[in-house]
Amino acid sequence: MEIHDLVKLMGSRRSCRSYLRNMQVEKSKIDECIEALRLAPSACNRQPWRLVVVSDRSSLDKICSECLLPGLPMPWLKDAPTIVALCLDLDFVTHKIAPIISGLQYQMIDAGIAGEHFVLAAEAQGLGTCWIGWFNEKKVRKLLDIPRRVRVVSLISLGYPSPGSNANASSRLSPKEIAFQHKWKDL
Amino acid sequence: MEIHDLVKLMGSRRSCRSYLRNMQVEKSKIDECIEALRLAPSACNRQPWRLVVVSDRSSLDKICSECLLPGLPMPWLKDAPTIVALCLDLDFVTHKIAPIISGLQYQMIDAGIAGEHFVLAAEAQGLGTCWIGWFNEKKVRKLLDIPRRVRVVSLISLGYPSPGSNANASSRLSPKEIAFQHKWKDL
Repeated sequence: MEIHDLVKLMGSRRSCRSYLRNMQVEKSKIDECIEALRLAPSACNRQPWRLVVVSDRSSLDKICSECLLPGLPMPWLKDAPTIVALCLDLDFVTHKIAPIISGLQYQMIDAGIAGEHFVLAAEAQGLGTCWIGWFNEKKVRKLLDIPRRVRVVSLISLGYPSPGSNANASSRLSPKEIAFQHKWKDL
Repeated sequence: MEIHDLVKLMGSRRSCRSYLRNMQVEKSKIDECIEALRLAPSACNRQPWRLVVVSDRSSLDKICSECLLPGLPMPWLKDAPTIVALCLDLDFVTHKIAPIISGLQYQMIDAGIAGEHFVLAAEAQGLGTCWIGWFNEKKVRKLLDIPRRVRVVSLISLGYPSPGSNANASSRLSPKEIAFQHKWKDL
């Protein structure tokens, strides 16, 4: 694959906040997203990620009505035909000891890497996604029978974007503002 | 871009632990990696990521000799012609308040997403990378003049892989082990 195509794909991805409610996502496409996620690297190759793929209307409605945090309304989410709960199964020594020594929660980085593999694979198949962090973890856990040892770290909405919904790109900092040569540079 | 090509790219990426020491990475290629990272999504579009791109031999040697944690020798790192310090500038209210409410450090997910954009862009250009979490953050910060408000969350080595170094793939869990339909499934 050409770098040009990859950067174009990354640049065309948007946080999609408008879905075609009645257009289900084909299982084969979801499987490709899962395959992309599966191939992600992780600290010590522990692959702590787990997904619960929710496509039944009753559970989707409950996520929207009962599991979101207040203050950031997401009315568009009710139209998403699929919501994925991105989880971390942290029942590994790696995840308990290493952060104490280094102070870094590698497993959250792992979740970001893996989730973005999923998101990019969705984009490559004409699907829209949105990373959603503003939810009540306890309620999601209860709704989806997720055991207490497992963290739910993000929801990812998935579906076909409404026409025109992807028009506006968020602004970005310039390369000079984010990347420094040799040493840190305070701007 | 075709999904097939993307999944193939993700599947061909390895944690590269053998580099051609004397083959510098072209600036144009590093710029493409930075561009890919720049396009990543982040919580509230805060783009907390910052990079310090280290390519001078003296600093590279110091990272290898002074900044790694004990117990996990990385002799191969001394041959990497570039090491990138992936940082988070957390001087934003978003990063201080939101985690208290939700219990989730979104910014670490942001770092994973952005770093993996960089890594995939490197792979698409024939470059090898390795996520490195096992380092002494304080020493890296001091060496690269990184202010105290900034977290260094990962190092990423970058360079041309030695021939044959990418032969072995790490094993992965099967799709059924990581993705569940509708509800969690204890295996």
